[in-house]
Formats: sequence, C-alpha cells, structure tokens
Amino acid sequence: MAATKTLQPNQMNFAFEDKSADAENSVMDEPVVKKSRQKTSKNTVTAETMAAKQRDISVSEFFAKNRHLLGFDNPRKALLTAIKEAVDNSLDACEEARILPDITVTIKQLTEKKFTVIVRDNGPGIISKQVPNVFARLLYGSKFHSLKMSRGQQGIGISAAGMYGLLTTGEPVQIISRIDKNKKAYHCHVQIDTSKNKPMVTLDEDCDFELPTGTQVTITLEGKYQKGKQSVDDYLAQTAMANPHITLIYNAPDGQVYEYIRQTKELPFTPVEIKPHPYGVELGLLFKMARESTAKHLTAFLQQDFSRVSSKVGDEICKKASLSKNLKPANMSLKEAEALHNAINETKIMAPPVNCIGPIGESELEKGLKRVVEAEFYAVCTRKPDVYRGNPFLIEAAIAYGFKSEQNADDPDKLPQLELKRFANRVPLLYQQSACAIHKAVVETNWRNYNLSQSRGALPMGPIVLMIHMASVWVPFTSESKEAIAHYPEIIKEIKLAIQECGRQLGMHLRKQKRIKLEMAKRGYIETYLPYIGEALQEILTLKDEQVNTILTRLKEVLEKTRQI
Amino acid sequence: MAATKTLQPNQMNFAFEDKSADAENSVMDEPVVKKSRQKTSKNTVTAETMAAKQRDISVSEFFAKNRHLLGFDNPRKALLTAIKEAVDNSLDACEEARILPDITVTIKQLTEKKFTVIVRDNGPGIISKQVPNVFARLLYGSKFHSLKMSRGQQGIGISAAGMYGLLTTGEPVQIISRIDKNKKAYHCHVQIDTSKNKPMVTLDEDCDFELPTGTQVTITLEGKYQKGKQSVDDYLAQTAMANPHITLIYNAPDGQVYEYIRQTKELPFTPVEIKPHPYGVELGLLFKMARESTAKHLTAFLQQDFSRVSSKVGDEICKKASLSKNLKPANMSLKEAEALHNAINETKIMAPPVNCIGPIGESELEKGLKRVVEAEFYAVCTRKPDVYRGNPFLIEAAIAYGFKSEQNADDPDKLPQLELKRFANRVPLLYQQSACAIHKAVVETNWRNYNLSQSRGALPMGPIVLMIHMASVWVPFTSESKEAIAHYPEIIKEIKLAIQECGRQLGMHLRKQKRIKLEMAKRGYIETYLPYIGEALQEILTLKDEQVNTILTRLKEVLEKTRQI
Repeated sequence: MAATKTLQPNQMNFAFEDKSADAENSVMDEPVVKKSRQKTSKNTVTAETMAAKQRDISVSEFFAKNRHLLGFDNPRKALLTAIKEAVDNSLDACEEARILPDITVTIKQLTEKKFTVIVRDNGPGIISKQVPNVFARLLYGSKFHSLKMSRGQQGIGISAAGMYGLLTTGEPVQIISRIDKNKKAYHCHVQIDTSKNKPMVTLDEDCDFELPTGTQVTITLEGKYQKGKQSVDDYLAQTAMANPHITLIYNAPDGQVYEYIRQTKELPFTPVEIKPHPYGVELGLLFKMARESTAKHLTAFLQQDFSRVSSKVGDEICKKASLSKNLKPANMSLKEAEALHNAINETKIMAPPVNCIGPIGESELEKGLKRVVEAEFYAVCTRKPDVYRGNPFLIEAAIAYGFKSEQNADDPDKLPQLELKRFANRVPLLYQQSACAIHKAVVETNWRNYNLSQSRGALPMGPIVLMIHMASVWVPFTSESKEAIAHYPEIIKEIKLAIQECGRQLGMHLRKQKRIKLEMAKRGYIETYLPYIGEALQEILTLKDEQVNTILTRLKEVLEKTRQI
Repeated sequence: MAATKTLQPNQMNFAFEDKSADAENSVMDEPVVKKSRQKTSKNTVTAETMAAKQRDISVSEFFAKNRHLLGFDNPRKALLTAIKEAVDNSLDACEEARILPDITVTIKQLTEKKFTVIVRDNGPGIISKQVPNVFARLLYGSKFHSLKMSRGQQGIGISAAGMYGLLTTGEPVQIISRIDKNKKAYHCHVQIDTSKNKPMVTLDEDCDFELPTGTQVTITLEGKYQKGKQSVDDYLAQTAMANPHITLIYNAPDGQVYEYIRQTKELPFTPVEIKPHPYGVELGLLFKMARESTAKHLTAFLQQDFSRVSSKVGDEICKKASLSKNLKPANMSLKEAEALHNAINETKIMAPPVNCIGPIGESELEKGLKRVVEAEFYAVCTRKPDVYRGNPFLIEAAIAYGFKSEQNADDPDKLPQLELKRFANRVPLLYQQSACAIHKAVVETNWRNYNLSQSRGALPMGPIVLMIHMASVWVPFTSESKEAIAHYPEIIKEIKLAIQECGRQLGMHLRKQKRIKLEMAKRGYIETYLPYIGEALQEILTLKDEQVNTILTRLKEVLEKTRQI
C-alpha cells in the first residue's frame, strides 16, 4: 500500500505537468526523453500501482467522450441527430398505441451556435416515473430485448441527444407528458449524471398541455442550421415520404413553416414481436439460455424460447443430439449444449415467421415518391420477406425517372447522378452512404442492362431517384448512430433483386422511348423522301398524278405498318 | 396494474406466436393484417403497458448483440481482433512498467471453426483481485480517464474478445498471471455475465509460470485462419515493423513459427499523462468540472484541472469573465460557467504540452520498414506535434519505393497500386481503410507532382509502400473496433504535410532516375555517332588518323561535360 500512496495518480500528473510546461516541443530531444525515463524508473510502475488506477467507466462517460459514434460529430449533424431521435421515438410511440401520428417539430435559434429543439407528439404519453429514465439514461428502453420492427432499437438515442445538449450548453432536457385527458400533464427538467449514467431531476411539477395525451421534449444544444443535403429539412421531407400516414408540421428556424398533411388514414401494419429462430443462436448463447430457462424439459425449452420449434421438431432435435427429452435445461453441461447446437443446425426447421414485419407497400411507396419527385416514369417493387442470421427482413424499391434535377441546373445536357434515398424501418438514412449495404447493391447492379450509363463501382447516371427501404425486426447498423446497414450477403442479394425488378421496367420504358424517338425519325425520313420517290415513279412508269398519289398513300401505309411502335 | 397483468410481454408473444406460425408469408395479405390490427386494439397499448416493458440494457448485452461494432463481424476478423486486443494490452503493460516486451502468440486449431488463442507476455503481471475485472467486464480499465498515449483506450477490447469466445464456444477465458518472482502465479477461469456486465470466476488457484513476471491469456473462439491481407500474420508483421523494440514469437496454426527479434534495446519514449486543455472543454463539461471541483477558488480550479493555465492566465480569464477570483467553483451557476467558457476562448493560452507523446522516430521507422520491404529508395518524415480539439498528436510518414510487388507478379509491366500501411499509437489498422483520415489525406495529395500517375480520388500507382503513424493521447476512432481515424481537418492537414515531405524526396529521386536514364541514352548516341563524325571531318579537312582521334576525344569530353548528370 505504501507504493500506492507515493504514486497517487494526481500527484504524478502534477510532477509531470510542471516538467512538461517547461519543455514544450522537447519531444524530439533525446536527452529530455532519457530524463523522463529515469524519473519513471524511480517511481517504479508495478502490478500494484497499475491496479490502483483500474476502474469502472460509465457507459455515459464512454459515449460522451466518443459522441461521434452516436452521430454528434459536428454541430450541423448534432442538430439533425437530436431531431431524428425525438421524431423516431414519437412515431414509434404513436404507432404502438395505434394513434395516427401528429408531430410538430420546432427549431428556435437562440444565438449563433445555440438552438432549442421542440418535438411534440399526440402519442400515449409516458408515465411520470419513467420520464427521467427514458430521457436521461443511456441503454434504457423497451425495444432492445425484443425482436420487433421499430425505429428505435438501442435505448440510447434520445438520452444521448439530451446528454449532448447538457455537454454543450449546460441546459437540462425539458419534458411535458400527459397520459390521461382527465388529468394534468407532468412537467420535468432532467439531466444525465454521466459518471453514474443515472437521471437527475431538477424540476418536477404538474402543468397544462394542449393535447389530451402526448409528449413534448425540449432540448437546447450547440448546433448549426443549414439547408440542403443531409439537412433537417431534407430528413423531415424524406420522413414524410416514407410515412404517408403522419401529419408533420415543421417550424424552421428561419420562420418558414412546412406542413406535410396526412395522405392516408390507414395506420401501417402492426409489428409483432417474435422469439429468436434456432438457426441464429450461437453455442454460447444457447448454453446461457438453457441454464437460465425455467422450463422443466428440454423439448419445452426449445418450444417456448424459440420460434418455429413444434413438438415434432423438438423431439427430432433431441434425438439427433442423443439427449433425453426430459433433461432439465438448467442442468445442461457445455458438452450437451454443443450436441444440441449441432443437432439444431442439422435439423430442417421452418424459416422464421414473417408476418412480424410489414412493408410500406407498393401503392403507398409510389404515392410517397410522387409527393416529393415529379417524374415521367415510376416503378415500384415490394419483395417477399427473407431471413438473415435468423432475423426476418424485407426490401422495397421505388424508381422515379425523368425529373428536373437541381444537379444539372447549370448545364442541362450534363447527366446528373442517380439520387439514392435509403430507409430502414421507415427512417431516412442520410449519412455514410458509401458504407451502406444499399449503396453496395446499387453500384454492383449492372445498370447498362437498363439503358443507363454507369462507370465501374459508381452510381449510374441519369435523372433518377431510387428509394430503397429495409424493414426488419433488427436492422444491423454499422454504428450506434444508425447511418448505414451492414453488408450481410442475404440483404444485399434481396436489394439487388428489388432493384432489378424496377430496373427491368425502367429499361423497357427507356427502350420504348428510344424506339419511339427512332420511329419518329424514320417517319420523318419517309415523309421527306416519299414525294421524290413519287416523282421518280411517275417519270419511269409515266403515271398520272392521281395514280401517283394512290401509290404513295399505299406505300406510306405499308412502310409505317412494318415499323409499328 | 390490472392492465399490466393482462399484457405480460411473454403472454403476448405466445398469442402472436401461435398466429404467426399459421400465417407464414401472410404479410402481403391485407385481411390478415387487418385481423392483427383488431387484435391489438383489444389489447390496448397505453402509457402504462408500455412502461411495464421499459428496462435497463447492460452494456455487455448491447455489445454482444452488436458485436460487429467491436470488430467481431465474422470468424476471420474475430480471430484477428482477439489477438490484436491481447497483444495491445501486453505491449501497453510492458512499456508502462519499462520492460522490453517479449511476446509469444500461439494459435491452435481445434476443429474446422474452433481455435484457441494464447498470448503470453513478460509484463509486470496483474494482481489477482483485478484479473476477473480486466478480462470479463466491459468498460473497465485504467486508460479511459487519462489523457495519455497508449494502445488501449476504452476498457472494452480484451473483455469483448472473451465475451465473443464465450458466446461462440461456451468456453471461459483462462488467465495465468505472476506479479512477483518469489511467489507462485495466479491461475483463473473467468466468464462475463452479460446480463450484469460482471465477471464470474469458475476456477481460482495458484500455479507455476515459466517467467518471473508476466501474463498469459487463453481464449477459445469460433474463427477462421486465412493468410494474406488483413490476416493475423499480416497484423503481427506490421506490429513488428512499428515496434522495433519488441521480440515477437508467433506459432501459426499451420505449424510455421515466425520470430521477430528485437532490433533495438531502447525502450520507446515514456508517455506522460496530461490534463485537458481549456480550449477543448465544452460549456457543459466545464460546468460539471467546476461543480465537482474541491478547489476553494476559481483560479485554483483553473490551474489544477487544466493544462497551460498559469496564475497570470487564470487571473486574466477571471477578469474577462467578470468573475471574482475567490468564487467557489462548486457554487458556480450555469450563467457564470458560460461567462467563464467565453472568457477562456477569448484568452490566449499556450498550446498543450507535447512531450506527452512520442514518435517512433525517423531512423527507427526506416529500420522497421527495411525489415519488411526491400526497396531501392526510402524517405522518412516525423512531423512536430500539433493539436486537435485540445489533444496533442503527431504524424510520421515513411515511403519505400521500387520493391518487387506481389500485386503485379503475373504482368511485370502493369503498375501496382500504392500499398498503404496505417498505424495509430504503434498499432496497425487493417480494416476500413477508405473510411480513415489517413486514406483521405493520401488520395487528396497530388502525387503527379512527384512523378507518379494517379486517377482522381484514388491511390497513386507505383511500387510504393507508404506507412503513416499517428501518435496521440486520444486517437479519435470512427468506431469501437478502432479501425479508422475520424476526419479531423487538423489531422488530415498534418498527414498531408508529412506525405509531401516524403513525396518531394521521392519526386527528386524519380526525376534524377529519369535524368540518368535519359543521359545514358544520350551518351549512347554520342558513342554511336562520334566515329561517323570523325570520318566526315577526316574527309573534309583531310586529317591524319591521330588528329582525328585527338579531336574525337576532346569532342566527347566537351559533349559529356555539358550534359553532366
């Protein structure tokens, strides 16, 4: 313990700090380095002194220091991410309670760099006891432990937005929530205690609220408002595109008001929670699930904790694993679990249920796209669900061709590049496009088959908007900020198939267009040269004008008939 | 509470589960969707029922489900990541205790997909009480809370490797550690309890160990061994390249043994821990630090908790903020903190100390590169330290030109693409090259200036290996798997400057080479045509053979002199 005392981390810092202040830039200076080495060898570092410095890191401290992992890289992106997290939560809550969502987003600019964001919904509200945890505690939520299609899935987003606000402005998150039209709303100010990852409530009262039920969250943060690609405006427009059942009012900081009015009163498909499919479970996890199971028999465990295991399939697995049906899962050994794991993967088990996920739907997709892009041709495709790593998912694609692009406003002859709009569980993905499975599938598709020009490894050229949507009980994002989908081969394959289906229709359209153009040109030739042919025939055969006219009419008919469009 | 009871999550699942089993693929089927909607409206979802499902997510559960975030995407990468985390920890421990590292890495293949990885070091060892926490608890360690140059910085790596092993094989992590040559070693088996993020010790005993002090960790995991780019072999070779002071023995699973023997007995620079620079601290964090400070006066707080604040600078900040020097930091209001924050950013404060980070060094870099690449030309550059977001960092670059590349073995005339080797605090980065600030800096450099061909937005062509090293007290990685450096403008700028310095030398070399080639060709012409000139002169001037010879010798001398290389 004596050693530990002489090496209090703080004291150490002080000694070094004083040195370092004198020795700016001395890093390239051999003698100084040697001096510092001698110093260290006096204060010997041993296992004990090192142990004294080991300690817990709270998950909030971790993400506060690494906030770029959550999408708070810079002020502009931070503003977008905060709004995105709040809107995602609002939509999830409304849909779960089967309420048609009315969302209001308001951004107020306080100073050059300071903004207040207010997001209000007409959802079911949040009970007062849970409000602090939901808004000021990372890794807390209802969605992580269930396999169910929803926008949020991590229990990080909105608390991270509040933490970023606190970090950059010192202001707490303000929440008003009302769960009963016969009662007052609950109003609270809460901030995250990052060293403990626990909420601290600084205000707590009843108040009025203009809606019968709903939640309003207010976050003050350092941000930057800028229109254009990857902007809040862009994100909200795309959200309206993929969610025709919502009404969205957006009060931009420059005073403009955008109203996206509900296009359909049909609530989207109700997602269903499912249990994991046996194929997607690894040995260690299977072992853990068995040890923690309260089931009395092995077959009961398999049937209860997994999807698609009937009593017949359960029996078959036990037999293949040479394990007794009556084995108590909690007493299972690792060796037995290994046998069970192998047996599962050798048994034919039905694919997981797919009615747990729902598409936007072809007609809704086309409506959504038309709301944003006015084009000459549309094609839409919703694929049947498929499975990756035991998780059901489905892919949808929609193409709009032949719109006026802003890209080529300066030079109308220059072809613009395809504009890709990516969505996961109806949420627009705005960043990290080239890291996304969707992008990979698009550039690996041979667009020349559909009469478009394309450089190798690049998006094709043309006035095209391509919208791809992935719906799943668990979207495999490449980072916590949920900006790109990981490269699972099954997912990429399905995206390609959806693109191909739209692409073929587009190709047909473009070929037809080309044919029409060609035909028009040919008809032009016929019209131009027919009189000369007439004159020649008249001369050669010495015909009357009338006869010539009859012949020319017949000739024109015949020529055009063989070239029907 | 009645509502909550009728909606037990499990019961709900069961009801839905039975339905879903009958209704495979029914997702596109409107009527069924409607049925499920009716069902839900019976089991009304309200704020109360939703609250019942809210709960904590342990950080291990989070990362187990999202293990691709930590580098465990697939079996091949998982094998590499596990070894990388163990080796990083070993090197950090040895260097902190000022021990020249001797590392042994052994991989044994158990079955087609199952491997055992053993990493042994001669470091100071780990005290037995800490072993379970270090190896089976995420977000636990000594490096996160300090600003100090080291390989590890998150307290996740090795526990994540153990967790992945447990998840895929059910096997615990095995550790032997000895901290005193006069005592026995400590041997334990430990596994992470993912639902609590706590270690569970399953074996705990004394044992023998062949080294006086050191640690050996054994992890059994699902993996795939494959040579080539991004392989374990590649990673260990690059580690030897950037760490000439280590001895590394590698027993590959195919029976081959690689020995990288120590090239220098000089231990690298001893990193020094620093305190944060005032410029890098955001308002919210400043406020929190003040409230938690034990300092009695504002100036004391500024001087103690930050680097580069002298008593004079502290006074100046207080004055600018219109705050009393005697204000007790713990009583500070948010408004006062805001004034302080603004004052800090208006005050000129010296850049942070830079003797806290150390380069590999130009001569060591060249040695390291020569150990791996035999080339005709080398250039090396170590830049002076700079600062991003308050954190000191420095960049080094090394170029090897004109080696035999394996890329163009088939077609020796085809130019290979530049091979980029990235390092952060001496650790090779093998994945996500195109997402890395280093890659961005390389492709944005105009290599045509240095006589190399380069397509826009691509790496240049040529038989070149380029090695870039970033050293910092905090490397801003784009993900927890620490594969790519985030795009901070200050960092990209420094990398470009380092590349340019090497590039200029390379350009000079290539121009000189070109000139020599040209000159050689010209001399060839002189040699070829001189005799004819002699004959012509002899004929015109009627000279004797002797005279002709003298003239030709003079002529050759003159011609060559004017074309000196």
